[in-house]
Amino acid sequence: MVGASTLEMAAAVTNAGGLGSIGAGAMAPADIESESGRLRAETGGAFGVNLFILPPARPTAADVDVAIERLRPWYEARGLDVPAAPNDYAPDFAAQFAALVRAAPPLASFTFGILTAEQVAALKAVGTLVVGTATTVAEARAWADVGADAVCAQGAEAGGHRGTFLKDVDESLVGTMALVPLVRQATGLPVIAAGGIMDGRGVAAALALGAVAAQMGTAFLLSDQSAVSTPWRRAIETAPDDPTRLTRAFSGRYARGIENDFMRLLRPVEREVPAYPVQNRLTQALRAGSAKLDDPEAISLWAGQAVGLAEAGDAGALVRRWWDEARAVARQLAAR
Amino acid sequence: MVGASTLEMAAAVTNAGGLGSIGAGAMAPADIESESGRLRAETGGAFGVNLFILPPARPTAADVDVAIERLRPWYEARGLDVPAAPNDYAPDFAAQFAALVRAAPPLASFTFGILTAEQVAALKAVGTLVVGTATTVAEARAWADVGADAVCAQGAEAGGHRGTFLKDVDESLVGTMALVPLVRQATGLPVIAAGGIMDGRGVAAALALGAVAAQMGTAFLLSDQSAVSTPWRRAIETAPDDPTRLTRAFSGRYARGIENDFMRLLRPVEREVPAYPVQNRLTQALRAGSAKLDDPEAISLWAGQAVGLAEAGDAGALVRRWWDEARAVARQLAAR
Repeated sequence: MVGASTLEMAAAVTNAGGLGSIGAGAMAPADIESESGRLRAETGGAFGVNLFILPPARPTAADVDVAIERLRPWYEARGLDVPAAPNDYAPDFAAQFAALVRAAPPLASFTFGILTAEQVAALKAVGTLVVGTATTVAEARAWADVGADAVCAQGAEAGGHRGTFLKDVDESLVGTMALVPLVRQATGLPVIAAGGIMDGRGVAAALALGAVAAQMGTAFLLSDQSAVSTPWRRAIETAPDDPTRLTRAFSGRYARGIENDFMRLLRPVEREVPAYPVQNRLTQALRAGSAKLDDPEAISLWAGQAVGLAEAGDAGALVRRWWDEARAVARQLAAR
Repeated sequence: MVGASTLEMAAAVTNAGGLGSIGAGAMAPADIESESGRLRAETGGAFGVNLFILPPARPTAADVDVAIERLRPWYEARGLDVPAAPNDYAPDFAAQFAALVRAAPPLASFTFGILTAEQVAALKAVGTLVVGTATTVAEARAWADVGADAVCAQGAEAGGHRGTFLKDVDESLVGTMALVPLVRQATGLPVIAAGGIMDGRGVAAALALGAVAAQMGTAFLLSDQSAVSTPWRRAIETAPDDPTRLTRAFSGRYARGIENDFMRLLRPVEREVPAYPVQNRLTQALRAGSAKLDDPEAISLWAGQAVGLAEAGDAGALVRRWWDEARAVARQLAAR
């Protein structure tokens, strides 16, 4: 939810009875501490922080040049400056992690990789619940092995980046309906269901499958507290049937979004772009510049498969409505 | 469920309160009528028949020769006779459909293609409910447009053949959690959820999402009434984590199964094998012969993503247990 979620969204979700989360993957370490402090104050203490587990990026100059040249026509067609090779690509994970331990949020979740048992223990020692994201049963077992408190089972339906870290993405696209009970069976840990959950029906379905909670992202993209750009919002509101695809072109890591020209035209070479976070950094100015130009064709329109069910409104009101709806659905089922 | 379901399985399911179905895709027209008559007698009348919608196969002799030569080493390695070019590849759909209208089952479902509005009307005229299989929202709309009574939403989790008929399979892998409410929203028709549903939790989840029923296949593969071969059964019982993949190699149409040598080794050329039913017919003797040899590496081990949850037992007892479990899950949710 980096680029879409806001502190206001997280606060509204928690204050409506959910658990709001900070998408801190792109944040500097100092910001992780200050934002955690702000959210703690605004929510009475219940919130989560999500980080990307990434090794330091050390691309060769030649690889970066090739990648920039591939992007040159996209920048130039929009009158945007072609970026020079950057000095850095993403915040240092070790420094982010140290800041997270100092911030000691009630819950921290992780994606793109796995912590060591020592890192998990360090978070537990400050009272933080550790949630690992898994897209397969094998990844869930790996999180159980390092001592995670819970697993977020990210079904293939989910929007944005895949959390996959063990095998190819092709081998790691398990639907939520299958993944949740499989992870529960394999690990015995509490499971948070993610992927395709858009309303109270989805929340009820996730809980019926044995999840302790439903994690929702795309469902908040049209909310009042969402930071999506104007063309991103319009793409969601006007999406055709079956609009999403996976792409590696924007960031060097597979992610699901509404298909546009950038995804379509770079598909033949998307396996060749440098791995995340390098490509992500190199397309940053293109995405930001295109958003300012109200051009949807070169920005990442991250969204899950059920984006057609997204609704507008206050994020807190949505949470309350979904919970009421989930309970009503359960009552109807119980009465059959 | 062709090759796995039996008349006894369908009867047990119906007599336990479900709706048993005949997988009639590979049946001769006369058998569709006689089997429908038998099932009608054994169930008091409630059952379904499933057919594959296929145009007549007219491969060139050269294409068939190339395909047979590609399979030659697989046959020879097992001491099996390499087949000559067959005279026919699959039962004629028009003749199957005429037999179906004469059999007039309470419900008929279709996959691989779409009926004409005239064909739908012909079934409705004899009192048969028409269910079209859709793997995308666009396919569901197409079924609504020809007058289908209900849509079976086949999520990406599902085992066996994909029902996809409008776009490439890559663009038609929507998870059950997303597909069911999207199809319901798009068509307003009753939706039957399929894909990843393995027990009462899955049934409750499907109904919570707005489905009127859950369609289960993989969940019956280990049942007492299942016709799976010995190596297929063993592959299910001993499947590792995340065991399934999609393949086109066995039949010329993408299907999900437990990965084996045939799937792995033919993956580089699977897009080149002749389309269903030609490749399916050419591998028929290889699959049957390998099953007799108790060799799991050259038979289609069709199974859904949640195959790890499959349980043994009487098919009717499983249905009753799942329904009790679904109601218990709903009661627990309603009490929260």
